[in-house]
Amino acid sequence: MNQSVTIALDAMGGDHAPASVIDGAALALRNHPTVRFVLFGDDTRIRPLLELHPTLKARCEVVHTLDVIAADAKPSVALRQGTNSSMRLAIDAVKSGRAHGVVSSGNTGALLATAKMVLKTLPGINRPALASVLPTLKRSCVMLDAGANIDCDARTLCQFAVMGDGFARSVLGITSPSIGLLNVGTEEIKGHDTLKAAYHALKEVKNLNFQGFCEGTDIGRGNVDVVVTDGFTGNVTLKTLEGTAHFVANSLKKALQSSFWGKLGFLIASPALSPFREKMDPRQHNGAGFIGLNGITVKSHGNADAIAFAHAVDVAFDLIQHDVNGKILEELESSGFDHLLQQPVKSTADETSAA
Amino acid sequence: MNQSVTIALDAMGGDHAPASVIDGAALALRNHPTVRFVLFGDDTRIRPLLELHPTLKARCEVVHTLDVIAADAKPSVALRQGTNSSMRLAIDAVKSGRAHGVVSSGNTGALLATAKMVLKTLPGINRPALASVLPTLKRSCVMLDAGANIDCDARTLCQFAVMGDGFARSVLGITSPSIGLLNVGTEEIKGHDTLKAAYHALKEVKNLNFQGFCEGTDIGRGNVDVVVTDGFTGNVTLKTLEGTAHFVANSLKKALQSSFWGKLGFLIASPALSPFREKMDPRQHNGAGFIGLNGITVKSHGNADAIAFAHAVDVAFDLIQHDVNGKILEELESSGFDHLLQQPVKSTADETSAA
Repeated sequence: MNQSVTIALDAMGGDHAPASVIDGAALALRNHPTVRFVLFGDDTRIRPLLELHPTLKARCEVVHTLDVIAADAKPSVALRQGTNSSMRLAIDAVKSGRAHGVVSSGNTGALLATAKMVLKTLPGINRPALASVLPTLKRSCVMLDAGANIDCDARTLCQFAVMGDGFARSVLGITSPSIGLLNVGTEEIKGHDTLKAAYHALKEVKNLNFQGFCEGTDIGRGNVDVVVTDGFTGNVTLKTLEGTAHFVANSLKKALQSSFWGKLGFLIASPALSPFREKMDPRQHNGAGFIGLNGITVKSHGNADAIAFAHAVDVAFDLIQHDVNGKILEELESSGFDHLLQQPVKSTADETSAA
Repeated sequence: MNQSVTIALDAMGGDHAPASVIDGAALALRNHPTVRFVLFGDDTRIRPLLELHPTLKARCEVVHTLDVIAADAKPSVALRQGTNSSMRLAIDAVKSGRAHGVVSSGNTGALLATAKMVLKTLPGINRPALASVLPTLKRSCVMLDAGANIDCDARTLCQFAVMGDGFARSVLGITSPSIGLLNVGTEEIKGHDTLKAAYHALKEVKNLNFQGFCEGTDIGRGNVDVVVTDGFTGNVTLKTLEGTAHFVANSLKKALQSSFWGKLGFLIASPALSPFREKMDPRQHNGAGFIGLNGITVKSHGNADAIAFAHAVDVAFDLIQHDVNGKILEELESSGFDHLLQQPVKSTADETSAA
């Protein structure tokens, strides 16, 4: 992509908006000095903040609106009543071609519903998926769907594999990403019929590096680059992962603070722990793309601060710059899922036990 | 329970059997000096090991058999061909009343299928569930089903709640355990219809401390004592949790070993870290009960060593001593699920988004 990238920002979405959005955009500009922004939101609150960042001010436009989607608004209400909201106008800007992508820390359900309605899915894609980047012992991996679709059929899971492949190649810069289908075991007799059907279809696709089933343990170990799963399992997995990381880190802290020697040892080791702290910082992993839409849409965490928001902007930039949608469309065309999924699925005895 | 507890041990199950089983039983005897054991397996390999533990030798019988269920045997094959195996004979001992419970580190699928066939489920229980004890920032919690049933209907999930309540009151010693139904959000409109039906039924049960939906983050934080879920989600959650704990601990280790000050700090803090190390040691959490069977059945990890196996024996002892099955039956009788589940489930709009 040679032309300059323009990103629309929902300046009013999230707990710390608009300050987190504007400070975050200014931070993101340090990594990507050629980016332009269009900020949607309350002019009287945005302008004074922009005065603190002259470089950013020179590279952005502000579109004034007072309407904001409430954090607890139902998606259906957001669709009906939010037509002039900062979120909606930012998405409209992608649709009209004014921006190449949008980033919002606002209401997740409203963002998904609005982006789906305005931008539509890519041809050949049934549903968008939330793609979440996770740190591992090796390089980062991407899991999708992290929560956009509670139920998914085999065809949708296969599409997620292609979308994950495109994401890993663009955002993570991995040449031939290994793909795993999340299950309760790695043998082909394990799991639901839907998973088995997706497994057999994906096994036949020559241009995907499909590794078969993977398990929850494979995520942290970094054994696959793309974890494919339905939005229910993906969302529970993502939150379990966050809860466990919090638990381990806090148990460690408690143990270290329990004695003089613990505190002293921690003090001495502290500088060596910076890369660990950074790796564990959820802000460094902020920014989950709704992949499969006809326009780049990135969801930032509702309580994102400036550092976290800047990371979400990085994700949007990478998705645009590396043309994730073009990659997905190419891959879809050559994969031939529809043909594969019309074949009868091999019948295998289901042993019912997941353990 | 006043009479002495007798536990049947599959002496040949697991990667390090029979040594891990016999050394583990000897360790468990230190905590529970009145327990008796019946060991099933190869006499010529068991006897020499028993000579090293005179106290254990005096408190156990050995029943000789050469047959062993292979670690990779299909459950159906184990049922047909394993009638004289160490695992089967140990389960038969519970059925006949010779032992109060059984512990095996053998093939999980075979153990479940055999225990189900021989012992049958408790009256009013459709399916046994694998109950796994997990460490949290507060006290330990129990999650079920951790992998015995891929698909579960609302009635089965309600039964799991009762079974988890009985488990938490007996093994974990919690008076009124708080119960959460694992979902992608805590609002009642979230999740599958099956979850919503179980939610509405459990909300009506007066003698259960049902807290509603919980999320993956609530597990590590210790926000609920009993996590109820289907065996697919439970198994993925359990393995994600293990993988994440491994990832965090190893990332920390790597950071500490990267410099002189990291190594020195670690050396100084090391004694303070013992409780942390113990809490993170998976051996301290070994022993998952197949709950809901007409006889106590505990699955120990396939690669359990003596320390891990002793913990699985502890779990079996607690389940027997505190009469988990009696508690479950009492609770089932007073809960009235069948009535509640026959009422139409409240219709609520499904917002599809899990995030």
